[in-house]
Amino acid sequence: MDLRNDIALAQRLADLAGAAIKPHFRTVPGERKDDATPVTEADRAAEEAMRRILTAEVPRDGVAGEEFGTTPGESGRQWVLDPIDGTTGFLAGRPIFGTLIALLVDGWPVLGIIDQPILGERWLGVTGRPTTLNGQPVTTRPCRELSDATLATTGPHYFDAHQGEHFMALAARTDHKRMVMGGDCYNYAMLASGHLDVVCEAGLKLHDFAALVPIVEGAGGLVCDWNGEPLHAASAGDVLALGDPARLEDVIEALASGH
Amino acid sequence: MDLRNDIALAQRLADLAGAAIKPHFRTVPGERKDDATPVTEADRAAEEAMRRILTAEVPRDGVAGEEFGTTPGESGRQWVLDPIDGTTGFLAGRPIFGTLIALLVDGWPVLGIIDQPILGERWLGVTGRPTTLNGQPVTTRPCRELSDATLATTGPHYFDAHQGEHFMALAARTDHKRMVMGGDCYNYAMLASGHLDVVCEAGLKLHDFAALVPIVEGAGGLVCDWNGEPLHAASAGDVLALGDPARLEDVIEALASGH
Repeated sequence: MDLRNDIALAQRLADLAGAAIKPHFRTVPGERKDDATPVTEADRAAEEAMRRILTAEVPRDGVAGEEFGTTPGESGRQWVLDPIDGTTGFLAGRPIFGTLIALLVDGWPVLGIIDQPILGERWLGVTGRPTTLNGQPVTTRPCRELSDATLATTGPHYFDAHQGEHFMALAARTDHKRMVMGGDCYNYAMLASGHLDVVCEAGLKLHDFAALVPIVEGAGGLVCDWNGEPLHAASAGDVLALGDPARLEDVIEALASGH
Repeated sequence: MDLRNDIALAQRLADLAGAAIKPHFRTVPGERKDDATPVTEADRAAEEAMRRILTAEVPRDGVAGEEFGTTPGESGRQWVLDPIDGTTGFLAGRPIFGTLIALLVDGWPVLGIIDQPILGERWLGVTGRPTTLNGQPVTTRPCRELSDATLATTGPHYFDAHQGEHFMALAARTDHKRMVMGGDCYNYAMLASGHLDVVCEAGLKLHDFAALVPIVEGAGGLVCDWNGEPLHAASAGDVLALGDPARLEDVIEALASGH
């Protein structure tokens, strides 16, 4: 599979999304009730810009975006777009949200971008290639024991009670003094770059997780569901990412011990 | 009280701390078990650099630092230093940790700096002056109803069971879909800049909270303990920050309703 043209296209999509998003970051409306406006406007402007290019240049490919839904294709290929992953972080002024762009072939993610336009950081993952941050290869780090692992999740309030118990069981077996909350897609980027060991989340949508798979895996890690199954277009969205794939059994066993 | 010389001194301390910290950010040791080394080295180098200047230039002032403890003074003035607030975030590669520098007079914080050296962001708060971010004034935002409030906390794992119940009661009365976790001192900076409404944390040390008081209050907000009492050197470290002081009663009542 030759993805060179797709890589170039995805980079252009990320450039356009970043340009659409940046003017809206940390704009402060006069009233709290209006404060969703900047993120909504940025989200819509970025997705419109990306869809315009896709419609013009790869009209046979499908498109699924967080803001404007699904446009079916006829090529077996689908672009999956989340203009701002981490809208609460964006609204809270944190420059660690991200634009997520993925290409799926027959439902499997083969290309992913996490773009942080404020910091000018872009992770690119492509099946069979080393993942890069701004063009430089990145790798996950080894983790010899689960008790050494630093765990991240965006927040416990995104788990239901049942999922929360499983998560707590996992957290208890990691180096929980190092655990970090918040972060959204940025946690997966940091895992790919070797700064975190495990990310565990539940209820993600396809546009939240599709781009993460090639990025983490091209850096030497693993992304799967809570049963260890690989993620594809029909996955339920309970997501595990590991920097060191050798810890997969330990993580799944720890999760399962919570009930 | 003329703090002009102290402001200039505090700015130099922040410059030195940032220079000491930056080379250690996102350095990746070969083994996970060594990965605390970068933050420990950065923490110690930054505090040593700051203490050296304070000892030379204001030898009668006391110094209390996270790394090297307390040096008593004889002037009624105390410099309080936290070279890296948010060490877990620092280790996770997030550029939203901060260097905290405070000056206390008779135990009351009168000057505070939050410095983010990777992003080049510095908040400066001084009693009786408008708080600035890189020299430009910032202000908190109004919050008409607690149900409109965006709440932030670094993580529920920093609460004991009792505190956690109070926090959950508060979270339930805010706009909890907007709640953000993680962030450490950066949450208070973002509250001062008008992007968050309430920060609620427990068990902070003097070096974690002293700098926040002049910054938040000089931006129009309020910092106090969970009973609404102002924070000083002997406070227990259960910290509330509000962008809109008019919501104080609502927040305290909501916290107290959890049991």
